[in-house]
Amino acid sequence: MKTLSVDLGDRSYPIHIGQDLLQRPELITGHVKGRQLMVVTNETVGPLYLDSVQQLFTGFELETVILPDGEQYKTLDTLNLIFDALLEKRFNRSCTLVALGGGVVGDITGFAAASYQRGVAFLQIPTTLLAQVDSSVGGKTGVNHALGKNMIGTFYQPGCVLIDTNTLDTLDDRQLAAGLAEVIKYGLIRDAGFFDWLEAHIDRLKARDKSALGHAIERSCTIKAEIVAADERESGQRALLNLGHTFGHAIETGTGYGSWLHGEAIATGMLMAADLSARHRWLSQADVDRIEALLQRAGLPTRAPDEMDETRFMELMAVDKKVIDGGLRLILLKAIGEAVVSGDFKPGLLNETLTSAA
Amino acid sequence: MKTLSVDLGDRSYPIHIGQDLLQRPELITGHVKGRQLMVVTNETVGPLYLDSVQQLFTGFELETVILPDGEQYKTLDTLNLIFDALLEKRFNRSCTLVALGGGVVGDITGFAAASYQRGVAFLQIPTTLLAQVDSSVGGKTGVNHALGKNMIGTFYQPGCVLIDTNTLDTLDDRQLAAGLAEVIKYGLIRDAGFFDWLEAHIDRLKARDKSALGHAIERSCTIKAEIVAADERESGQRALLNLGHTFGHAIETGTGYGSWLHGEAIATGMLMAADLSARHRWLSQADVDRIEALLQRAGLPTRAPDEMDETRFMELMAVDKKVIDGGLRLILLKAIGEAVVSGDFKPGLLNETLTSAA
Repeated sequence: MKTLSVDLGDRSYPIHIGQDLLQRPELITGHVKGRQLMVVTNETVGPLYLDSVQQLFTGFELETVILPDGEQYKTLDTLNLIFDALLEKRFNRSCTLVALGGGVVGDITGFAAASYQRGVAFLQIPTTLLAQVDSSVGGKTGVNHALGKNMIGTFYQPGCVLIDTNTLDTLDDRQLAAGLAEVIKYGLIRDAGFFDWLEAHIDRLKARDKSALGHAIERSCTIKAEIVAADERESGQRALLNLGHTFGHAIETGTGYGSWLHGEAIATGMLMAADLSARHRWLSQADVDRIEALLQRAGLPTRAPDEMDETRFMELMAVDKKVIDGGLRLILLKAIGEAVVSGDFKPGLLNETLTSAA
Repeated sequence: MKTLSVDLGDRSYPIHIGQDLLQRPELITGHVKGRQLMVVTNETVGPLYLDSVQQLFTGFELETVILPDGEQYKTLDTLNLIFDALLEKRFNRSCTLVALGGGVVGDITGFAAASYQRGVAFLQIPTTLLAQVDSSVGGKTGVNHALGKNMIGTFYQPGCVLIDTNTLDTLDDRQLAAGLAEVIKYGLIRDAGFFDWLEAHIDRLKARDKSALGHAIERSCTIKAEIVAADERESGQRALLNLGHTFGHAIETGTGYGSWLHGEAIATGMLMAADLSARHRWLSQADVDRIEALLQRAGLPTRAPDEMDETRFMELMAVDKKVIDGGLRLILLKAIGEAVVSGDFKPGLLNETLTSAA
């Protein structure tokens, strides 16, 4: 087992990564506040791991909420199901919410914890690779709105994150690949050596080799934790974590949440960012080809769907969070392992990237 | 004009109190972030003051959302109307929300500001006495749930509060009295001299004498600001501000939000707290009579509605935020001007208070 610390002053918290951690209550029960524990999960993950989690928290007053599964349920209405359960069970301010599941469960449960009675304790047990390397680190919580993804939410840090890599055995191939998209992202934005390692180990990762997965998760969480510690509220370099996200969010919104997985959209979005970087001669075409090859070996799409033409992209990107006071800023690549926030791109080249994406 | 400062480190903010402040843009425009400004108001306050507020913010890109008026609309659904407007108008993260209205508008707008794109700037222009002395100070934001009042929300501080006492001229008598309930509360919990002053000036306050109102607002905000500065997240003495609220919230929930005003329910709740304190011999019956007399002169109810019998009170109080890990704690009075948080009351005497309240 490895333990990382996300360093955020009095909001610092540990991330434990390893096999069989669902059998180790000593890692997490010290972070529970009060006696009342609400485990929030979904109809896919619940049947697989709720029994283990109930064992993990033996001795607490434990209740559960089972949400429907899917990004299309990441809404205020679903959030309210958690509030319904908390109030029906008469949970008070000294209670703890536990997110058991993927990114949607984590984000929505975190927002519920941030806003139930103005804030209660929150623990994360992420069970998808995407959630383990992305949404469990950094405190972003929230839900979608019909007019934009993740538009409603807060920053709220968990007390502890428990990553049991065994849970990846029940993940379907498409979800595993979606998680690998974010893993590849960390190499692209910050660590060329890790990108090389991923090229060498992508087949072992796809085969769910626990040792390889443990390393990939640890390296991903470490990079994200470093960036978040330096910029908790995304005023500067934290934006680098959004590589591929402006394009990717447009694909997710344009195709309706749920048809493309977040990681799939980000994969295509990252290749678009690489393509735009190459059109500015910041990146070589050989590097773009390496990125595309790795994404494809990971089982990820690298072309936008046909309905996403240039016009639709521009329309959907205009409402994106990265639009600051009228100036679109994108995360682009100066090299593999070096991302930058840039408002300094040529609109004509952006049009070329959008036109050739599908 | 008087200016107070709420001292919360890097979240400190000024409260300006006086006449004709809606004509003084220099007091507030320095606190606007970005160029996009969304004024949130309701169908009662909008027609009265939106024109002035639009003048106040000349030069900004100003949009408005008009919410329905009333505590019964303090819901997640109404909150979503604000998100709809922000997204339809393509507001980005560098925008500012302005709450123009009473406590409901302030609380819901504050929560919208806290959770739109994980937090945008927020200014308050409270137009009711209740909002001026209570909800505009201290950063509590949120909405109600069918199973409990203010159960969903966050702590989020405004950048500036502008209190123009002229806005009280358009307040109806019942709303003015509801605000006076909170003003009286500050005397009861912390300042016997202010309670004496209120007894001497209650008729001038009811007659909307601006000088008297200005003093009452300033003293109320000062007391609340001192308490909040010492305990921003309500782990200790801030709970004193809830004098009368456990009983009052039960009345509001039991009668359905909207039939009793918050201040009216608090007035009755404070007298119940005084009654329970007297039954413990902490307060004299003469003090209880003084409190009842002042509340009545202010035009406030001091008896719970008939449907609120002891059983109904207990049922509704069990879900209240003041229930911490199974132990009900109440705010009681050791003297006029000295409130305490107490779990140390006799259940039998509580029953007597609940039985005799209606």
